[in-house]
This record gives sequence, C-alpha cells and structure tokens, in this order.
Amino acid sequence: MKRFLHIITAAVLLLVSINLEAQKILYRDKTDPMPVINADRTVTFRYYAPGADTVYVNGDFLPSGKRPALMANNGNGLWEYTTAAPVKPEVYTYSYIVDNQKMLDPLNMFVWRNISDLYNIFIIDGERTKNYQVKDVPHGTVSAVWYQSPSLGMQRRMMVYTPAGYENGRKKYPVLYLLHGMGGDETAWLDFGRAAQILDNLIAQGKASPMIVVMPNGNPAEKAAPLENPDGYNMPLFYLPKTMDGSFEKSFTDITSFVEKNYRAIKKKRGRAIAGLSMGGFHSLYISANYPNMFGAVGLFSPAVSVQEEFKNNPIYRDIDLKWKAQMEKNPPFYWIGIGKADPLYNEVTALRTKFEFCKYPYTFFESDGSHVWTEWRIYLEEFSQLIFK
Amino acid sequence: MKRFLHIITAAVLLLVSINLEAQKILYRDKTDPMPVINADRTVTFRYYAPGADTVYVNGDFLPSGKRPALMANNGNGLWEYTTAAPVKPEVYTYSYIVDNQKMLDPLNMFVWRNISDLYNIFIIDGERTKNYQVKDVPHGTVSAVWYQSPSLGMQRRMMVYTPAGYENGRKKYPVLYLLHGMGGDETAWLDFGRAAQILDNLIAQGKASPMIVVMPNGNPAEKAAPLENPDGYNMPLFYLPKTMDGSFEKSFTDITSFVEKNYRAIKKKRGRAIAGLSMGGFHSLYISANYPNMFGAVGLFSPAVSVQEEFKNNPIYRDIDLKWKAQMEKNPPFYWIGIGKADPLYNEVTALRTKFEFCKYPYTFFESDGSHVWTEWRIYLEEFSQLIFK
Repeated sequence: MKRFLHIITAAVLLLVSINLEAQKILYRDKTDPMPVINADRTVTFRYYAPGADTVYVNGDFLPSGKRPALMANNGNGLWEYTTAAPVKPEVYTYSYIVDNQKMLDPLNMFVWRNISDLYNIFIIDGERTKNYQVKDVPHGTVSAVWYQSPSLGMQRRMMVYTPAGYENGRKKYPVLYLLHGMGGDETAWLDFGRAAQILDNLIAQGKASPMIVVMPNGNPAEKAAPLENPDGYNMPLFYLPKTMDGSFEKSFTDITSFVEKNYRAIKKKRGRAIAGLSMGGFHSLYISANYPNMFGAVGLFSPAVSVQEEFKNNPIYRDIDLKWKAQMEKNPPFYWIGIGKADPLYNEVTALRTKFEFCKYPYTFFESDGSHVWTEWRIYLEEFSQLIFK
Repeated sequence: MKRFLHIITAAVLLLVSINLEAQKILYRDKTDPMPVINADRTVTFRYYAPGADTVYVNGDFLPSGKRPALMANNGNGLWEYTTAAPVKPEVYTYSYIVDNQKMLDPLNMFVWRNISDLYNIFIIDGERTKNYQVKDVPHGTVSAVWYQSPSLGMQRRMMVYTPAGYENGRKKYPVLYLLHGMGGDETAWLDFGRAAQILDNLIAQGKASPMIVVMPNGNPAEKAAPLENPDGYNMPLFYLPKTMDGSFEKSFTDITSFVEKNYRAIKKKRGRAIAGLSMGGFHSLYISANYPNMFGAVGLFSPAVSVQEEFKNNPIYRDIDLKWKAQMEKNPPFYWIGIGKADPLYNEVTALRTKFEFCKYPYTFFESDGSHVWTEWRIYLEEFSQLIFK
C-alpha cells in the first residue's frame, strides 16, 4: 500500500510540479483558488503570462461600461487587477483576454458551459447568494432523462429535479416546466440558474411547495447538450436553427405527456406551471396561450415577445389575441412578468403589459434593476417559485 | 423579434470578435473544434501564444516516454504539433503547458474534471470507441442522488444509472456498485469511464443485462464532488483524508440499504455486483470480503491490494485470509481481476493471484497491454459488465 501511494504520489507530483512555479508566484505558497476575495469584498485577479502584450479580465462582476478591465503587468510575469470597489454578493462568471484570445483561469477549476462557451465562476457570500449554494438541507434528485419526441422525430434529453422525499413516497407533485434562453440548453438553469439549490433551499425553509422541475432543451435542432448529443462532438452555434419558429412550442405536449406518464405528477391545470427566460419566456408565452387550459401559472422572465416576420403565419403564433382571450377571460392562470429596468427588452415587455392592461388581463409585475442577465433570472426564479402551487 | 435577435446578436458578436483574430489564424475561417484529426489519423494541435517562450502539448495520446511534446513556433504567434504517427481510436485527454503553466485549450469546449484538475478531451472514432459515444439507442437515466450515511454522519451525493425502461416498469433490476480511484469522485466513471454510454450501448446490443449502476463518492472526507459540496468551493487535494483507512468500506451498507429501499433492486446476492478501479478495486476487495454473502460478482480493475501499515489492525482489513476463506469456499462470487502489463501495480496483483491460486479460489483473469489509466478501465468495464447478472 505504501508503494501504491508512492507510485500515485510520484505521478501526481509530476503533474503538480508543472504548475508549481506559476502557483508560487500567484499564491505565495497558498492554495486558495482564484480569484482572491479580499476582506473588504474587493476581488483580486492574478494571471501568469510573462510573454503577453495585454491581459484583460472580463466578467459580469465589472460594471457594464468598464468591461473588460486591463490588468497591470507587475514585471515578474504576473498580471494583476483588483476591483475599484467592493463587489456585491453574487455568483459571477469571468474569463481573461490574453493577446486578444479568451482564456480560462488555469488556477480555478470551477467552470460552467453556456452552449459552446466556458466561463470560470466565483461566488461572494451574502444575503443574495444564500439560496444559490449547496447547503446541508434535504436535497432533491437531479436526473438527465431521455424522452421520445414524436413531433420532432427524435429522442431528446432533459433535466428533471424531483424534490427530497419524492423517491420513497406515494404523493403526487406539481410540475414547473422551466425553460432556458437562446444560447442555453437543458443544463443552463442548473448551472447558471442554480435551480436545484434555489428549490432545495426554499423547500427546506418552507417557502416553496415541493415540486418537480422539468428543464427541457428548447433548441429543436438539438437532441441534447454538447458531449451528450448522439450527433457528435460539434461546437454548436449560439443561435441554433429552428429556435423560435414554432417547432419547440408545437412539440411541447411530447414533454408533458412523458412527464405525466413517468412521474407522480398532478395532472391538472393547478398542478402545472411554465416559466422561462428570454427565448424561454417567449416559449412560455406562446405554449401557454396555445394550450389555454394547461397551466395554472405562467412566468415570463425578461421575455422576448414579438414574432419574426417570416413566422407570423405559423399556427403557433397566429391569432395570439384570440388565444390570450381564451386563456385569460375564464379561469386565468397566475401570470407573472419580471424584467430589469436596464433590460434591452424592457420596451417590448411594456407593450405586452399595455395590451394586458387594456384587455384587463390579470398579471403580476416584478421589476428589478438589472439587465438581460442571469443575476436577474435567479431572482425571478426565487420569487416565482414561492408564489406558485399554493 | 428582429430587434431581439439584433440585440442578442450584437452581444454575442462582441464576445466572438475577441476570439476572432486567434481563430482566423488557427482555423483559416473554419470552425472545427481543436484538435484537428487528420485523414491519416495523425492529430494536429495548434495553440496561439505569441509571447510564450515554450509551449508543450501533454496528454495520454502521446507515448508515455514522449510526454509532453514541444510544439513548434510558427512565427505568427502560433505553436503547432502534429503526432509522428496515426493515433489509435480512443478517448483522449490533453492540455498545454505554456511557460511552465498548465493551460486548457481555449478553442475546445469539451472538458472533464478529475478532482481539481480539468482536461480537454478529444475522440478518435473506431472499433474501440464505438461504445464510448452517445448513440441513438434507448438511454438510461443518470441521476445525482443524495443519501444519508449514518456511519459517516453526513448526507452524501452519488450518481445512479437506471437502464432504459426502468421508469415505466415494475421489473426488479440487479445493481452494479462501481467505484472510482484515488483522484476521482462520484462523476469519474461517467466522464472518463463512459459508464452510461457503455451500459446504454451494451444493453441495446443485448450484450449486457439491464442493470442499475450506483457510483458513490469513495472519499469519506467529502460529501460530494466540488461545486456540489455543501462544505464550500474548495479545491480538493488529490489524496483526500481517510480514503483507505476502512471508513468507506465500513459505511458501505449505508449505500446498499439506501439503494435497496429506494430502487427496484434485486435484494439478493445474485443481484449485486461490486467493482472498482485502483483505490476502488481496493475498496471492492475489502468490502466484498467483509460482507462475504452480499455480492454475486466482484471486479477488481488494476486494484491496489496491500494495506498501509498504520491501518493493518483496523477491523475492516484484519484477518483478510479468514474473510477470503468465508467468501470463497462456499458459493464463491464470480471474481474478476483485470490489470495492464505496464501497470505499476502489476506485481501487487500477481501476489494476490498467487495467493488465490494457492488457496484454489476461483477467479477470472484479464490482462491488457496498458498501464494504470482510464483506457484500460473502460475496457474492463465493457468486459466485466457483459459477464455479470447472466
């Protein structure tokens, strides 16, 4: 056994020693991960690139007008940047730009993928982030599940969260269908959205009802996220084909049928909610309007609203006013719209609200300060999930 | 909608343009991911680092004596290396060493994590890899599940594969407990080990029996893999505390009890198998010997065998000869040992085999050519999973 450890240790040391020179300079022999969150909540980034001409750090922790931030060359191969002010508690993504090329932080193992782009992450603890972290509370199960979509003619992958206690009970649960935006796929709400942590924590605190959360892949051209896709190891484009042409909306009952056949789901309007961000808000709007008696709650998070000219005659998008009438005049769902003051879609959402108000359709409006970013969507999920299935 | 697309497109183009200069040089306007697999199965790596003094490419595609390989500086900021010979079909991991620092490939989004280290991957299609890829076959479900471990005093995370058809049936299934090595955690067999793909494909071909595969975290000091651990965003060490001191083996019935309570598992010896690689082989050896009537099949994949001096009197490791006698003399399990000719643990395994032969304990031996690496362990899983539960 000692020998075994020696062999393994030797192999590991070989790997470790490669990074040792860089790490010594960066950490002065400490092994905290990058970046360094200082006592005053400023954040220090260090990047080792002795030969580089320019190194920037980029990320959503920087004020939007001040991205990316040029790092200072300290002369010993190390580039350094400390934020000018304390950084608010949040989950942040960042990367470096080294001689015009986006690079990950070699000293931070925590990485999330958005379609075909990787980002390092860091978290600043605080009131805002307390529900975004894995806590010692009862945990739901997160599953990667394949379902047959006859409408799209393919097996497709989705993620399903079942709340703590689901496995060894008989109870039926309500289902929230939670949709990602353009540039995301079935894992986006779990990584960037912290959906499992938010639900685990809110359910443990008694603030949200135990629910199943179904996170499908809203890109009808894709069977599954990259690496999980039988079509190969392609680098998908950000804007995938067929994302907003009615295909996904039309195929949605393939998902609800599968879920209600395979899970202990409440198969009634009051037991179904649908919500999504950006493109997923667009999907939620048109899916719920086309199936006016299906969902007891609808959440539009920074939604896109208007339909591309070429698809306006698609049966999914046609006659939306009549569909809203059917959805809203008798037993309307709990309809929730959230948007940030700085969101580029703010005016589009205002037009939707004006129409709803003119028609006297009931809805709840939630306004935050931010833009078209995950910071806001996590807040909306926290808000919305506490208001449904009560 | 057009406006929405314009807004999103502008935001994306801003991000994309950062990488454009580098990508143009690398790809000459093509967008294939790195590395480039040439028609003759040689592989070309290109890395853009105009200011670097040295750039190496490192990875298991290189012959063990020829790692890392120095790349050539082409003068325009681009470093290039093409393998001297065609590369055998396999799944490979690689990274770069730039001025003595390990770096990921900024143009390859496919990344796996081994404890606190990230690697890029690439795959060369062929006979060897056909079961390692996601195919259009019925897929099992992969779930992240938390269980209570009274013995370790914590909630812990494990991954569970349930075969296609499990969700909407009544049938009971056999269970393979599949354990990772030192430097791994509950996701290792799914990423590097391709366990879900191997099982999906072998079951679809009728070569393996449908089975549940349970992949626990074998590091008793950890509740869960990094990022999923309630103890915070720490960078775990490769050699975690308490990994081979008897704690994990002792806690193992917490896992089997949970599985047999929560899954439609065959609760008999013939319906239980245990297998693991390296440290997981060590765990499989001692767990199965301590519970001689629990497992109908045992697989040791490049196992560590001998116990560290300080733990020799631990009840788990004590009297192993008597325990083997109890396990092997009456209704012995199907006992399978696999190791590569170049594995540094080869002699340790030979000593175990000598003992088994002296005692006339039945076992099946499988020898491969390689060393103490995932290439071999994937082969062993393919072999072993076709021989059990028949």
